[in-house]
Amino acid sequence: MSLQPKTADQITADVVRQFERAPDPRVREILTSLVKHLHAFVKDVNLTEAEWMAGIQFLTATGHMCSGHRQEFILLSDTLGVSMVVDLLNHARAGGATESTVFGPFHRDGAPELPNGGNIAPHDATGEPALITGRVLDTHGHPIANALLDVWQADSEGLYDSQRPEAGELHMRGRFRTDSQGRYQVRTTRPVAYSIPTDGPVGDMLRASDRSSWRPAHTHFVVSAPGYQPVTTHIFDDKDPYLVSDAVFAVKPSLMRTFERKTHAMTLANGDTMPAPFAHADFDFVLSKG
Amino acid sequence: MSLQPKTADQITADVVRQFERAPDPRVREILTSLVKHLHAFVKDVNLTEAEWMAGIQFLTATGHMCSGHRQEFILLSDTLGVSMVVDLLNHARAGGATESTVFGPFHRDGAPELPNGGNIAPHDATGEPALITGRVLDTHGHPIANALLDVWQADSEGLYDSQRPEAGELHMRGRFRTDSQGRYQVRTTRPVAYSIPTDGPVGDMLRASDRSSWRPAHTHFVVSAPGYQPVTTHIFDDKDPYLVSDAVFAVKPSLMRTFERKTHAMTLANGDTMPAPFAHADFDFVLSKG
Repeated sequence: MSLQPKTADQITADVVRQFERAPDPRVREILTSLVKHLHAFVKDVNLTEAEWMAGIQFLTATGHMCSGHRQEFILLSDTLGVSMVVDLLNHARAGGATESTVFGPFHRDGAPELPNGGNIAPHDATGEPALITGRVLDTHGHPIANALLDVWQADSEGLYDSQRPEAGELHMRGRFRTDSQGRYQVRTTRPVAYSIPTDGPVGDMLRASDRSSWRPAHTHFVVSAPGYQPVTTHIFDDKDPYLVSDAVFAVKPSLMRTFERKTHAMTLANGDTMPAPFAHADFDFVLSKG
Repeated sequence: MSLQPKTADQITADVVRQFERAPDPRVREILTSLVKHLHAFVKDVNLTEAEWMAGIQFLTATGHMCSGHRQEFILLSDTLGVSMVVDLLNHARAGGATESTVFGPFHRDGAPELPNGGNIAPHDATGEPALITGRVLDTHGHPIANALLDVWQADSEGLYDSQRPEAGELHMRGRFRTDSQGRYQVRTTRPVAYSIPTDGPVGDMLRASDRSSWRPAHTHFVVSAPGYQPVTTHIFDDKDPYLVSDAVFAVKPSLMRTFERKTHAMTLANGDTMPAPFAHADFDFVLSKG
């Protein structure tokens, strides 16, 4: 038997060699790079066996925290900045289109379809009434009719519906369609700054490193239309003190808007009356041809 | 607001800065290095959003596969060679002591205490009877009495007890103590080569990369004694064809032994008779002062 004792670097070479037969060159490229960087990390910090086991337990607890209502691995990716690096690599040049930002761990499928003017926050009694309006446009400024806006937001106490099991089903979520002139109207409560959930492994990591868990106030949008590239993004409140210290590094200046105080009631597209006072933000989404 | 658009490299710098306040310098060192290497990986391969989401789903599925009887993250670490790099970093110089290797995902607490000569495989009817004997010594060659050997092994079909829910509780496991002369005797069946479990995300990864899932035949030991550094290791069958292609990169030449065919029955330490023929391997464990 010609086996010889091996060094850590030889183990790395052995593992890389084991991935050489991967039929898909992209699979090979990704796994080879992952192995090299993971091994380099372990060697750089000279990871102890106890630290390795703590890492195994951290990942296991993160997996066990994931459910239909909670995605702790996305939260981990977000808080380690990985999500924003992926975002920036994939959307380095928006080309005049609206910039993207993190998807986050709180999206849920099946939000109700609402008419323009529809209220995603009918049960959020303590929130400041707010209206978000604007258009969906192509990069030449032409309106896109029937574009879909999937909207979600934390309530005025900073919690998403999935963090309130007692609240039952979907709240603070809605899907809207632009009218023939590309216009939309989303009635909601004004988004507030909130702490991401800290009752899981990500919270343990933030506490161990004395990091803030706070995110600036924002409303989530995924905007899509046939023939265009969809955009996953936020609108941020430009007065929020946490804009400079977002726990997930997701703020882009082009996504900040002023929520202006309106003192007159307004008739909405669906015929409802928006009572005064309310906060109003205007945001035109621009989509590139897909 | 002085916020400016950021590049991916600036995001990396921002995340590292967020970890600067970690009170424990080791926590800061590990998380900072992890972030740099993770981001470098994402940038190196220019990870797409779909690939990122596939990674999130892979990690989530790996977490959901973990239970009291299955540790898929250890299996992932093992198959990516991370476990062996950690092993080699922590045990670069055995200093005359027995070399270590991976712990693996199949250890369970609470194995029965057996007298020397006790059989960990009474229910493994199809296996080749085998005996593993030897001594536990210090680095000067002096015997260590009352050392503890925690032993576990796959059965002759290549499955651990935890992979056979119908088998009920602990099988193919035992804890032994050396006698006053440092001797131990473990009766078992001869270990066989086996495939690591491929019904989870790790199996998906191995198939996607056309990698072998096979491990050479081995028996696991954790050997410990008060005042000495414990060792987590295997004894490998030196005739196994998979020694050169272990799916978890764990083979060290010093851990290979010949299982010799014995044609005469033998009286064991507990008075039992080991019927002929059987396979016999001899291994002296050497522990360093702790």
